[in-house]
Amino acid sequence: MWKRWILSLIKPSNADRNFHTSKILQEAKLIDGKKIAGEILQEVKQSVDSWVQSGMRRPKLVAILVGEDPASTTYVNNKMKAAKSVGIDSETILCPYDVAQAALIERIQLYNVDPLVDGVLVQLPLPKGINEKEICHAVTPSKDVDGFHSENIGNLSSDKKGIVPATALGVKELIIRTKVETFGKNAVVIGRSKHVGLPIALLLHADGNGETGALDMTTTICHRHTSHVELKKFTILADVLVAAAGVPGLVTKDMVKPGACVIDVGITRVKDARGKFKLTGDVDFDGVKQVAGHITPVPGGVGPMTVAILMQNTLFAAKRNQQNK
Amino acid sequence: MWKRWILSLIKPSNADRNFHTSKILQEAKLIDGKKIAGEILQEVKQSVDSWVQSGMRRPKLVAILVGEDPASTTYVNNKMKAAKSVGIDSETILCPYDVAQAALIERIQLYNVDPLVDGVLVQLPLPKGINEKEICHAVTPSKDVDGFHSENIGNLSSDKKGIVPATALGVKELIIRTKVETFGKNAVVIGRSKHVGLPIALLLHADGNGETGALDMTTTICHRHTSHVELKKFTILADVLVAAAGVPGLVTKDMVKPGACVIDVGITRVKDARGKFKLTGDVDFDGVKQVAGHITPVPGGVGPMTVAILMQNTLFAAKRNQQNK
Repeated sequence: MWKRWILSLIKPSNADRNFHTSKILQEAKLIDGKKIAGEILQEVKQSVDSWVQSGMRRPKLVAILVGEDPASTTYVNNKMKAAKSVGIDSETILCPYDVAQAALIERIQLYNVDPLVDGVLVQLPLPKGINEKEICHAVTPSKDVDGFHSENIGNLSSDKKGIVPATALGVKELIIRTKVETFGKNAVVIGRSKHVGLPIALLLHADGNGETGALDMTTTICHRHTSHVELKKFTILADVLVAAAGVPGLVTKDMVKPGACVIDVGITRVKDARGKFKLTGDVDFDGVKQVAGHITPVPGGVGPMTVAILMQNTLFAAKRNQQNK
Repeated sequence: MWKRWILSLIKPSNADRNFHTSKILQEAKLIDGKKIAGEILQEVKQSVDSWVQSGMRRPKLVAILVGEDPASTTYVNNKMKAAKSVGIDSETILCPYDVAQAALIERIQLYNVDPLVDGVLVQLPLPKGINEKEICHAVTPSKDVDGFHSENIGNLSSDKKGIVPATALGVKELIIRTKVETFGKNAVVIGRSKHVGLPIALLLHADGNGETGALDMTTTICHRHTSHVELKKFTILADVLVAAAGVPGLVTKDMVKPGACVIDVGITRVKDARGKFKLTGDVDFDGVKQVAGHITPVPGGVGPMTVAILMQNTLFAAKRNQQNK
């Protein structure tokens, strides 16, 4: 009798084994960015179709690519492919790597006033010697489908409906469509860039009843000057953790609250052991998936969402510009 | 001998008593907003003097007051007094309580185009039926010395030099002039209003090397949907704690990190036991001063700073507008 009791303390019972198995099965659910982006593209396609059927002009997007950086070329090609798939006309303008800033701005201004163009984007990063901030502000706000112009950021900050930076809106859509609870919950954004980190924080913290339909989360912005010790104090409290630092593997398992939704915006090209490049996120995926409730992969998470939202933004700009005429 | 030893355990030694006394003496240092605001007004006065001496037109500020709310009247009077003290011309426009929104906007537009006016402010709150957001956006951004227009908020969000909401810039100046360490430290802002809480968070978290000279702090935005339990988890980590919720006594001693700098933006009129109104902040001053390192009083903390920075903003707008002509 005693022996049996002692053995039961050592040998796991069936119940224990089931518990153990179920724990392994309770790995984070993968957030399939490619699939959700596909749904959004489908929605945009339907809207474009009805827009054109109602007699309006088909939206047109112009992308300006400076130089021949392979990553930038791939990104622009993906955007043009997506445009084609939803019925948005598109054109890629290639500029030489050594284009002068003034010439680039002149080119942008041509499209700013072209009544047949609805959206203009300049693929970043730009070569050294060109001021990205000035280039982003050269695109007229009403055609700035990237949402980088301070007028568009200002509208977002002031809770006025407008064009929202595509990656930020993509992150919000991923969270909403995954049905993660956000109201009054805690969010952490790692990264404070003006194009990604900050607009994400704006969409997470603000009023859900406002024009921008934000998520009402208590929101912490961490950045390069947040020490690792302090960073963990915040990430461990986060129900939604968005990593947008561009530091491969920054977020590890021990930093994540069990059940949290982890969104990885980081995309860094890293050389693997065999000298081949691969895309790596800010999140240690294999470790973090053991504690998180939901997690995005890299690639296939936020990336496709950015492209899909860009199409949504182009349609939004086209409708607003054509209706305001 | 034993008896003496046991007694020493019960009776505090001199050393203990000194420790106790020094603890009491280590109460938070008061941040004298009135004094710091006075310094800023003195600086603005000197700049106005040299501006006028160099042959430029004396800056002019127009304040629009709707109705006869006693608090609003006092605020506008304080602003006009400050303007006079620094040599800024000023004019208060009184509108009846039942003014139509369209008429109010028409009035604002008169000053927008008046070449002799540099700054226009509309005292908030406005009567029900008038949309404050639309009124704030009716003031032309270049004369919007309150910094409430989305173009100005957008510049702040995008780290472009411009007019920053006066209270937010006042809070930043209080922190800087108190010489509190901020780089890489933790900040919490309670309140996410577009005029106060959000711009404060923008000035706290962003890049110190940028045009807006922000404070590089890890920054958490808490708000009405942050539960009290969660709120404390963040405030207790804060090296700088800014309360801008408008909830009297919200921040208590147990929520504050020892040595923290506590800035109280809240000003609520509360009836005391004898039925008299007094101004009360969001911070339980008597309790919190026992643990904080620095603390602002209410009144006499942030309030005078808002007025002083408004003068600084008016001079900034005057210089920019007159130079751009």
